[in-house]
Amino acid sequence: MKFLHEEIVEDQQARLAFIEVGESLIELLEPTCPESPVAKFLEKKGPGIHHIAYAVPDVVEALATAKAAGYRLIDEVPRKGGHGKLIAFLHPKDTHGVLTEFCQRIED
Amino acid sequence: MKFLHEEIVEDQQARLAFIEVGESLIELLEPTCPESPVAKFLEKKGPGIHHIAYAVPDVVEALATAKAAGYRLIDEVPRKGGHGKLIAFLHPKDTHGVLTEFCQRIED
Repeated sequence: MKFLHEEIVEDQQARLAFIEVGESLIELLEPTCPESPVAKFLEKKGPGIHHIAYAVPDVVEALATAKAAGYRLIDEVPRKGGHGKLIAFLHPKDTHGVLTEFCQRIED
Repeated sequence: MKFLHEEIVEDQQARLAFIEVGESLIELLEPTCPESPVAKFLEKKGPGIHHIAYAVPDVVEALATAKAAGYRLIDEVPRKGGHGKLIAFLHPKDTHGVLTEFCQRIED
Protein backbone atom coordinates (compact mmCIF):
# COMPACT_ATOMS: atom_id res chain seq x y z
CA MET A 1 0.00 0.00 0.00
CA LYS A 2 1.26 3.45 -0.89
CA PHE A 3 -0.24 6.85 -0.08
CA LEU A 4 -0.55 8.77 -3.34
CA HIS A 5 -2.40 12.01 -3.08
CA GLU A 6 -4.83 14.17 -1.08
CA GLU A 7 -7.15 16.94 -2.27
CA ILE A 8 -10.45 18.72 -1.69
CA VAL A 9 -13.02 18.35 -4.47
CA GLU A 10 -15.41 21.31 -4.09
CA ASP A 11 -18.04 19.76 -6.37
CA GLN A 12 -18.28 16.75 -4.06
CA GLN A 13 -17.85 18.79 -0.84
CA ALA A 14 -15.29 16.22 0.25
CA ARG A 15 -11.65 15.75 1.07
CA LEU A 16 -10.23 12.74 -0.81
CA ALA A 17 -7.15 10.68 -0.12
CA PHE A 18 -5.89 8.02 -2.52
CA ILE A 19 -3.97 4.89 -1.53
CA GLU A 20 -2.52 2.60 -4.18
CA VAL A 21 -3.00 -1.16 -3.76
CA GLY A 22 -1.58 -2.91 -6.80
CA GLU A 23 -3.57 -1.69 -9.82
CA SER A 24 -6.44 -0.52 -7.62
CA LEU A 25 -6.94 2.63 -5.57
CA ILE A 26 -8.56 2.99 -2.18
CA GLU A 27 -10.21 6.40 -1.93
CA LEU A 28 -10.88 7.77 1.55
CA LEU A 29 -13.70 10.32 1.75
CA GLU A 30 -14.27 12.98 4.42
CA PRO A 31 -17.08 15.57 4.19
CA THR A 32 -16.03 19.22 4.18
CA CYS A 33 -19.47 20.51 5.31
CA PRO A 34 -22.70 19.12 6.82
CA GLU A 35 -24.51 19.40 3.43
CA SER A 36 -21.96 17.17 1.70
CA PRO A 37 -23.36 13.97 0.16
CA VAL A 38 -20.62 12.18 2.11
CA ALA A 39 -21.92 13.70 5.39
CA LYS A 40 -25.43 12.49 4.50
CA PHE A 41 -24.11 9.00 3.76
CA LEU A 42 -22.30 8.87 7.14
CA GLU A 43 -25.40 10.11 8.96
CA LYS A 44 -27.65 7.52 7.30
CA LYS A 45 -25.39 4.46 7.10
CA GLY A 46 -22.37 5.18 9.28
CA PRO A 47 -18.77 4.61 8.15
CA GLY A 48 -18.26 1.91 5.55
CA ILE A 49 -17.80 1.34 1.83
CA HIS A 50 -19.26 4.26 -0.13
CA HIS A 51 -18.81 3.19 -3.75
CA ILE A 52 -16.91 1.07 -6.25
CA ALA A 53 -15.41 2.77 -9.30
CA TYR A 54 -14.41 1.13 -12.58
CA ALA A 55 -11.81 2.76 -14.79
CA VAL A 56 -13.19 2.97 -18.33
CA PRO A 57 -11.63 4.38 -21.51
CA ASP A 58 -14.66 6.63 -22.21
CA VAL A 59 -17.21 7.62 -19.52
CA VAL A 60 -19.72 9.04 -22.04
CA GLU A 61 -19.72 5.75 -23.95
CA ALA A 62 -19.93 3.68 -20.74
CA LEU A 63 -22.95 5.74 -19.58
CA ALA A 64 -24.67 5.28 -22.94
CA THR A 65 -24.09 1.51 -22.77
CA ALA A 66 -25.41 1.34 -19.18
CA LYS A 67 -28.47 3.46 -20.04
CA ALA A 68 -29.27 1.33 -23.09
CA ALA A 69 -29.07 -1.75 -20.82
CA GLY A 70 -31.74 -0.21 -18.54
CA TYR A 71 -29.60 1.23 -15.72
CA ARG A 72 -30.80 4.49 -14.20
CA LEU A 73 -28.05 7.11 -14.07
CA ILE A 74 -27.33 9.59 -11.27
CA ASP A 75 -25.16 11.55 -13.70
CA GLU A 76 -26.49 11.80 -17.25
CA VAL A 77 -23.39 13.85 -18.04
CA PRO A 78 -19.93 13.16 -16.50
CA ARG A 79 -18.48 15.64 -14.01
CA LYS A 80 -15.00 16.32 -12.69
CA GLY A 81 -13.91 14.05 -9.82
CA GLY A 82 -10.73 13.90 -7.79
CA HIS A 83 -7.27 12.86 -8.98
CA GLY A 84 -7.66 14.20 -12.54
CA LYS A 85 -10.66 12.08 -13.47
CA LEU A 86 -13.98 12.48 -15.24
CA ILE A 87 -16.64 10.57 -13.28
CA ALA A 88 -20.30 9.52 -13.36
CA PHE A 89 -22.46 7.42 -11.04
CA LEU A 90 -25.11 4.80 -11.76
CA HIS A 91 -28.14 4.58 -9.47
CA PRO A 92 -27.57 1.99 -6.70
CA LYS A 93 -31.18 0.78 -7.01
CA ASP A 94 -30.19 -0.82 -10.32
CA THR A 95 -26.83 -2.17 -9.11
CA HIS A 96 -27.95 -4.30 -6.13
CA GLY A 97 -27.32 -1.49 -3.64
CA VAL A 98 -23.73 -0.98 -4.81
CA LEU A 99 -23.12 2.68 -5.65
CA THR A 100 -21.16 2.33 -8.89
CA GLU A 101 -18.96 4.88 -10.60
CA PHE A 102 -17.31 5.01 -14.00
CA CYS A 103 -14.13 7.05 -14.12
CA GLN A 104 -11.83 8.11 -16.92
CA ARG A 105 -8.41 9.68 -16.46
CA ILE A 106 -8.26 13.03 -18.26
CA GLU A 107 -5.07 14.52 -16.80
CA ASP A 108 -1.92 13.31 -15.03
CA MET B 1 -14.22 -8.14 -17.12
CA LYS B 2 -13.92 -11.92 -17.40
CA PHE B 3 -15.90 -14.64 -15.65
CA LEU B 4 -13.40 -16.98 -13.99
CA HIS B 5 -14.91 -19.55 -11.76
CA GLU B 6 -17.95 -20.64 -9.72
CA GLU B 7 -18.10 -22.91 -6.68
CA ILE B 8 -19.96 -23.73 -3.47
CA VAL B 9 -17.93 -23.26 -0.26
CA GLU B 10 -19.62 -25.41 2.38
CA ASP B 11 -17.81 -23.70 5.26
CA GLN B 12 -19.33 -20.36 4.23
CA GLN B 13 -22.70 -21.83 3.20
CA ALA B 14 -22.43 -19.81 0.03
CA ARG B 15 -22.14 -20.11 -3.73
CA LEU B 16 -19.27 -17.94 -5.01
CA ALA B 17 -18.61 -16.60 -8.49
CA PHE B 18 -15.39 -14.80 -9.40
CA ILE B 19 -15.06 -12.12 -12.07
CA GLU B 20 -11.65 -10.77 -13.01
CA VAL B 21 -11.25 -6.97 -13.38
CA GLY B 22 -7.61 -6.19 -14.08
CA GLU B 23 -5.61 -7.43 -11.07
CA SER B 24 -8.71 -7.43 -8.85
CA LEU B 25 -11.50 -9.96 -8.45
CA ILE B 26 -15.19 -9.28 -7.92
CA GLU B 27 -16.68 -12.09 -5.85
CA LEU B 28 -20.44 -12.60 -6.03
CA LEU B 29 -21.96 -14.33 -3.00
CA GLU B 30 -25.26 -16.24 -2.80
CA PRO B 31 -26.40 -18.05 0.37
CA THR B 32 -27.00 -21.79 0.05
CA CYS B 33 -29.27 -21.99 3.13
CA PRO B 34 -31.20 -19.62 5.44
CA GLU B 35 -28.58 -20.06 8.22
CA SER B 36 -25.76 -18.84 5.98
CA PRO B 37 -23.92 -15.71 7.19
CA VAL B 38 -24.58 -14.34 3.68
CA ALA B 39 -28.35 -14.88 4.16
CA LYS B 40 -28.14 -13.05 7.50
CA PHE B 41 -26.27 -10.16 5.87
CA LEU B 42 -28.92 -9.87 3.10
CA GLU B 43 -31.74 -9.99 5.66
CA LYS B 44 -30.14 -7.28 7.81
CA LYS B 45 -28.64 -4.94 5.20
CA GLY B 46 -30.05 -5.97 1.82
CA PRO B 47 -27.90 -6.48 -1.28
CA GLY B 48 -24.66 -4.49 -1.43
CA ILE B 49 -20.94 -4.75 -0.85
CA HIS B 50 -20.20 -7.52 1.65
CA HIS B 51 -16.44 -7.24 2.15
CA ILE B 52 -13.10 -6.16 0.77
CA ALA B 53 -10.25 -8.69 0.63
CA TYR B 54 -6.54 -7.96 0.41
CA ALA B 55 -4.20 -10.56 -1.04
CA VAL B 56 -1.30 -11.05 1.37
CA PRO B 57 1.74 -13.35 1.16
CA ASP B 58 1.06 -14.86 4.60
CA VAL B 59 -2.36 -14.71 6.34
CA VAL B 60 -1.00 -15.91 9.71
CA GLU B 61 1.58 -13.12 9.72
CA ALA B 62 -0.98 -10.51 8.54
CA LEU B 63 -3.34 -11.54 11.37
CA ALA B 64 -0.54 -11.28 13.93
CA THR B 65 0.36 -7.78 12.67
CA ALA B 66 -3.30 -6.66 12.77
CA LYS B 67 -3.80 -8.11 16.25
CA ALA B 68 -0.64 -6.42 17.56
CA ALA B 69 -1.99 -3.12 16.13
CA GLY B 70 -5.17 -3.54 18.21
CA TYR B 71 -7.60 -4.91 15.59
CA ARG B 72 -10.13 -7.44 16.83
CA LEU B 73 -10.17 -10.60 14.68
CA ILE B 74 -13.19 -12.61 13.57
CA ASP B 75 -10.84 -15.47 12.66
CA GLU B 76 -7.92 -16.02 15.04
CA VAL B 77 -6.87 -18.87 12.77
CA PRO B 78 -7.23 -18.79 8.95
CA ARG B 79 -9.78 -21.03 7.26
CA LYS B 80 -10.30 -22.32 3.75
CA GLY B 81 -12.10 -19.90 1.42
CA GLY B 82 -13.13 -20.18 -2.21
CA HIS B 83 -10.87 -20.23 -5.27
CA GLY B 84 -7.97 -22.05 -3.57
CA LYS B 85 -7.40 -19.49 -0.83
CA LEU B 86 -6.71 -19.35 2.88
CA ILE B 87 -8.77 -16.54 4.40
CA ALA B 88 -9.40 -14.66 7.68
CA PHE B 89 -11.62 -11.72 8.59
CA LEU B 90 -11.00 -8.71 10.81
CA HIS B 91 -13.87 -7.34 12.91
CA PRO B 92 -15.68 -4.51 11.05
CA LYS B 93 -16.04 -2.55 14.30
CA ASP B 94 -12.30 -1.85 14.10
CA THR B 95 -12.22 -1.16 10.34
CA HIS B 96 -14.79 1.67 10.10
CA GLY B 97 -17.62 -0.71 9.23
CA VAL B 98 -15.72 -2.28 6.33
CA LEU B 99 -15.67 -6.07 6.68
CA THR B 100 -12.04 -6.79 5.79
CA GLU B 101 -10.50 -10.08 4.72
CA PHE B 102 -6.92 -11.20 4.25
CA CYS B 103 -6.46 -13.94 1.67
CA GLN B 104 -3.52 -16.01 0.59
CA ARG B 105 -3.43 -18.24 -2.48
CA ILE B 106 -2.52 -21.79 -1.46
CA GLU B 107 -3.39 -23.72 -4.62
CA ASP B 108 -3.96 -23.01 -8.32
